[in-house]
Amino acid sequence: MPIVTVQQGPRDVELKRDLVARITDAFVDALNVPAESVQVWIQEVPTDSWAIGGVLTADRPKK
Amino acid sequence: MPIVTVQQGPRDVELKRDLVARITDAFVDALNVPAESVQVWIQEVPTDSWAIGGVLTADRPKK
Amino acid sequence: MPIVTVQQGPRDVELKRDLVARITDAFVDALNVPAESVQVWIQEVPTDSWAIGGVLTADRPKK
Amino acid sequence: MPIVTVQQGPRDVELKRDLVARITDAFVDALNVPAESVQVWIQEVPTDSWAIGGVLTADRPKK
Amino acid sequence: MPIVTVQQGPRDVELKRDLVARITDAFVDALNVPAESVQVWIQEVPTDSWAIGGVLTADRPKK
Amino acid sequence: MPIVTVQQGPRDVELKRDLVARITDAFVDALNVPAESVQVWIQEVPTDSWAIGGVLTADRPKK
Repeated sequence: MPIVTVQQGPRDVELKRDLVARITDAFVDALNVPAESVQVWIQEVPTDSWAIGGVLTADRPKK
Repeated sequence: MPIVTVQQGPRDVELKRDLVARITDAFVDALNVPAESVQVWIQEVPTDSWAIGGVLTADRPKK
Repeated sequence: MPIVTVQQGPRDVELKRDLVARITDAFVDALNVPAESVQVWIQEVPTDSWAIGGVLTADRPKK
Repeated sequence: MPIVTVQQGPRDVELKRDLVARITDAFVDALNVPAESVQVWIQEVPTDSWAIGGVLTADRPKK
Repeated sequence: MPIVTVQQGPRDVELKRDLVARITDAFVDALNVPAESVQVWIQEVPTDSWAIGGVLTADRPKK
Repeated sequence: MPIVTVQQGPRDVELKRDLVARITDAFVDALNVPAESVQVWIQEVPTDSWAIGGVLTADRPKK
C-alpha cells in the first residue's frame, strides 16, 4: 500500500539498489506491513531543474 | 480541473496515445466533466529507479 | 505497476467508486496490464487551495 | 536535498514518528547525505479515496 | 500547461490567495505563458505528517 | 519548508533560472518565509507524455 516517491538528483544504480531496500525496511519495521506492499519511485531531477533558495543547484559552487 | 499524474515504466507513444484518451473518457463518463478540463501527465521511470518489495524492477527476472 | 495520482476537488464516494474502476479499465485495455497492478490515489483539494489563472477556485463565481 | 513523499492511509502519530526517523536513516546510510537535507512528507489518503485493482480500499472486506 | 503542486503546512486563505496570484505571475513573467494555463494545487500537510532531519515538525520546539 | 513541484514541458536553463527565482520570491513575499526554506523541483515531461482533453500535446498542431 505505501507509495513512496523520491525527488533527488541522479545517482548510481548501486546506491539506488541499497536505498530502495532500506526505505522498504523502514516501512516493514515501523508499520509492520509486508515488503511486497511497498513501492518506491525515484524521480531523478538534473541539477539545472531544481533549486533551493531561488538558485538552481547547477549554479551553486561545487562542494 | 482533474490533474492526473501517472508513474510507470517507459511505453511506446501509440500506447500512451490510447491510454490518455481512455483515462480522459473515464473522467468524462464518471464525473461528467468536460474533456478539456482533464490533464494527464505521464512520469516515465526507468526500471532501475523503481522498486516493489525493496527490489529494483531492473533486478527482477524478466517475465 | 502504474501508480495514478489524481488531484481534484472533493467528490461523493459513489462517483469515486465509479471513477477508480474506469481509470483501472483504461490501463487494462490500453496497456494490457493486470487490474491488480494498478493503484489510484485521489488527493482531494478544497476549493480554497487550488487555482487556475491565479484565482482560487473558491473565489470564482459558482457556475 | 532528497524530498520523500509518502502516500498511505491514516496512521497514529507514534508510528509516523518512527517511520520518518527510519526513512531518514535510510538516506543517511545509503547515500551518505546529512539528515537535515532529507524531508519526508506523508500524504494521508482515506480508504474511500484510493484503490487497487479498481476497487476502493473502503469497499474491500476488512482483513 | 504548467501544473504547480505545493506541499506546505496549513495557511490562512488570505495568504493562499496572495500566494497563488504571485506564483502565477512568476510563470507569466518568466515563461510568457497565459495566466489561464497555470494551475496551482496546494497540498496542506499537518505538522505531525512531515519531517526534516527525521524529526516531525510537530515535535520541534516552537520558534 | 514549502516544496514546489512543477510539471511542464522542457525549457531552456535561462528560463528555468529566472522561473525558480521568481517562484521563490512569491513565497518570500506572500508567506514571509526565508528563501532558503523554499525548494523548487521542475519535472520536465516530453510532449508525447502529457495530454489535455485526451490528446497528446505532441499530436496537437503547433501554434
